[in-house]
Amino acid sequence: MALLNWDRDTAMPASGTDTRAQQMSTLAALLHRELIRPELDDVLDMQRTIAEGDPVAAREVALLAHERARATRLPESLVRELSEAESRCVAAWIDAHPRGDWDALRGPLAHLVALKTREAEALSDSVQIYDALLDGYEPGATTDALTPLFADLAGRLAPMILEAQATMPRPLPTRHWPHNAQMELAHEIAAMVGFDHTRGRLAESAHPFSTAFGAGDVRFTTRIDERDPISNILTVLHEVGHATYEQGISPDYARTILHDAPSLGAHESQSRFWENHIGGTKAFWELIAPRMGALFPTAMKGIGADDLYNATIGVQPSLIRVNADEVTYNLHIVLRFELEVGLISGDISVDDLPEIWDARMVDLLGIRPTSPKDGVMQDVHWPDGMFGYFPTYTLGNLYAAQLATTLDTELGGLEARIAAGDLSAILGALRARVHRHGSLYRTTELMMHATGASLSADPLIAHLATRVQTAISSHG
Amino acid sequence: MALLNWDRDTAMPASGTDTRAQQMSTLAALLHRELIRPELDDVLDMQRTIAEGDPVAAREVALLAHERARATRLPESLVRELSEAESRCVAAWIDAHPRGDWDALRGPLAHLVALKTREAEALSDSVQIYDALLDGYEPGATTDALTPLFADLAGRLAPMILEAQATMPRPLPTRHWPHNAQMELAHEIAAMVGFDHTRGRLAESAHPFSTAFGAGDVRFTTRIDERDPISNILTVLHEVGHATYEQGISPDYARTILHDAPSLGAHESQSRFWENHIGGTKAFWELIAPRMGALFPTAMKGIGADDLYNATIGVQPSLIRVNADEVTYNLHIVLRFELEVGLISGDISVDDLPEIWDARMVDLLGIRPTSPKDGVMQDVHWPDGMFGYFPTYTLGNLYAAQLATTLDTELGGLEARIAAGDLSAILGALRARVHRHGSLYRTTELMMHATGASLSADPLIAHLATRVQTAISSHG
Repeated sequence: MALLNWDRDTAMPASGTDTRAQQMSTLAALLHRELIRPELDDVLDMQRTIAEGDPVAAREVALLAHERARATRLPESLVRELSEAESRCVAAWIDAHPRGDWDALRGPLAHLVALKTREAEALSDSVQIYDALLDGYEPGATTDALTPLFADLAGRLAPMILEAQATMPRPLPTRHWPHNAQMELAHEIAAMVGFDHTRGRLAESAHPFSTAFGAGDVRFTTRIDERDPISNILTVLHEVGHATYEQGISPDYARTILHDAPSLGAHESQSRFWENHIGGTKAFWELIAPRMGALFPTAMKGIGADDLYNATIGVQPSLIRVNADEVTYNLHIVLRFELEVGLISGDISVDDLPEIWDARMVDLLGIRPTSPKDGVMQDVHWPDGMFGYFPTYTLGNLYAAQLATTLDTELGGLEARIAAGDLSAILGALRARVHRHGSLYRTTELMMHATGASLSADPLIAHLATRVQTAISSHG
Repeated sequence: MALLNWDRDTAMPASGTDTRAQQMSTLAALLHRELIRPELDDVLDMQRTIAEGDPVAAREVALLAHERARATRLPESLVRELSEAESRCVAAWIDAHPRGDWDALRGPLAHLVALKTREAEALSDSVQIYDALLDGYEPGATTDALTPLFADLAGRLAPMILEAQATMPRPLPTRHWPHNAQMELAHEIAAMVGFDHTRGRLAESAHPFSTAFGAGDVRFTTRIDERDPISNILTVLHEVGHATYEQGISPDYARTILHDAPSLGAHESQSRFWENHIGGTKAFWELIAPRMGALFPTAMKGIGADDLYNATIGVQPSLIRVNADEVTYNLHIVLRFELEVGLISGDISVDDLPEIWDARMVDLLGIRPTSPKDGVMQDVHWPDGMFGYFPTYTLGNLYAAQLATTLDTELGGLEARIAAGDLSAILGALRARVHRHGSLYRTTELMMHATGASLSADPLIAHLATRVQTAISSHG
């Protein structure tokens, strides 16, 4: 299924779309059929007995049993209906999004939300059925735990954003940054972080992502814009954070359910760490500026590390999540979390989404979308059925900040290591504390071991406060 | 499974090999498990009743029932053992082939031959169990039918090869043919033949092949050698013959078992048609020489269509099948057919293979390998478990010659059409006579409808006799 996905986004012609959707639906149904086979209970019982006293084997059995328990609650017909409704809704979104045509998306999305609600009801024992969807991406997370955490974050970000207002990044002069040199730079930055190119692949896709087909085959993509060198660099740092995580999991766990992160929040902690805590330092731009000078002799004329750095910092409320700065970004997630909890619980109707979205954007960021294209229709996640996914982005930011605080102490200053070109010490520390464990621990345990602290907004708030001060002193 | 294969050969890092083999084994087992599900009998019975009087539906049911009948004769354990033994034997071949180390291959190959014999026994009702393997590639073909046909061919080729002796192709002068321009030419030639690039992809791989993931997604590869422009061109003609076949099957058959050729021999008839009956004409090289002049301004200096053409013609016995000329090629197949019939029937032991191979090479082509690397170890097909596959290459040559004879009459001369740049008329005739039907007819029926004649060596012998005369008059 991962390969069907990778190929769809990196190689498949558009005329393959319908058949590919059917192939993915078929495989989803086959996976479901394997997971619900009655004889699996006996296998799991036997393995549970064998695993007594062996925490690795016991965790493996527990994770498999959890997957099976979720699968047995869903009829195969619903699995297929969901897969097909998602494909149809994504197709409707691809068609309707460019012109912001909410009326064309509303019907397919309402149908999909109804199916996702049926899925959540089937999976859930609790009153808050949304938690069952959240569990698919962030096992152990609950609406009751996230709501006050996100409210705390939103409350403390609001005055910071007011303080930082109008500190926009200083764009680079308009130049041509050739495609092939950008791909070479992408390759080099990935290697610099510690990605092993002999055990993986780098490709291009419209929406960058990373994936793994096994311990020896980890892949990620970037997107090249010849008018802008920065986006590719930050994208590579982000995706290679995911990809080095996959390459760093203990080979003992190959071909088992343990060969994965315990949650998407844990995975995202690595991508956000490299993108924001490494890519957000002046030392990083000083490190790569000479290579950029060699790769882009014309475009880099008169441009130095300071210019590159200044092009990346700034705080300003904006409508589009993927373009948001690091400080305002999390409020985009808070908005989506509130709305999807409401959608799945039935408190919010799909018909009312645009109005509620726009009103909450005004509350949280002080700006109002002019079209659904810049509002409720901007992301493909909901049309793709990924309700419960968005919160993992902010959880990733929270864990990344905790890890950066820990590593800053452990390594005698992250910036000093970057300035010394010693990214391998940083990757080594992440491997030891996070990657190698795979899914052996739950995310909360893993991060408690790795950072000595439980989940809190404090490290992220402290980090973003520094960002705001930097933006003010640079551009204020 | 086709995608796992495509990705393995076009993108996968070598470190993904083991996991990929396990993934393919898992999918082979899942496919087998689906095919043998008991409830499929009722489904097939019901469909058989519904299909009465509807030849399309009836053929679909018959083909599915045949697949199922074959699957139910094989235990899942044997399916997995075969898949894993093939992967291990291919790995042994990759290691041992470059140094011609027969001792390192013999054990894994003997184990695989034993498993393939068990497979053939399980699948077969007849005395000649090899036919059951042949049936997997060329349904309806039998050892009893192929033996006299191939003997006739070999007997008539022998004097022709003697007559043509030492008419080697005249190689082009040593020049540099840049990779990117060769890929552009590959793209253009494919489009010229009629391949729809918006519904497929062209990539590179060490061993060129073609595949399809559905009606809207057909792919093929080529291999670029910067010292040689000819190999890429003939490879593209060959693979695009396969690929245009897949693109030409009636869309009514999409996502059914009918959306395929009825046999590999039928498929190969299309690749051989374009490679040998189009690529083997002077008119073709006259057609593309101007484009080559534009794409390779330096390398093409002083080189004309005649030089390109003369570099492709010539008849000379040689040791390596894939480098053989069109005339001697089929004797390489006759050799393999004889030996694999003997291996599966138990008349030949794997231990004796190199000796028998070398002796029969002397009988058939008058030359003796100096190392197993140039003899019994040259092809990956047997290590990959593909016993019964080789005969389809010569069947493809036979059918291609029959089709060329028919189209030559229908279109008022193939060479005249090529000279006029009207390849679309040729593809159109192939679509109408062959492609669109998919697997609706058995290969023998399809070719009888398409050519008005049953399978015979005559058209191929007539075609090759012309080739021999051309070689003699050009280089003799």
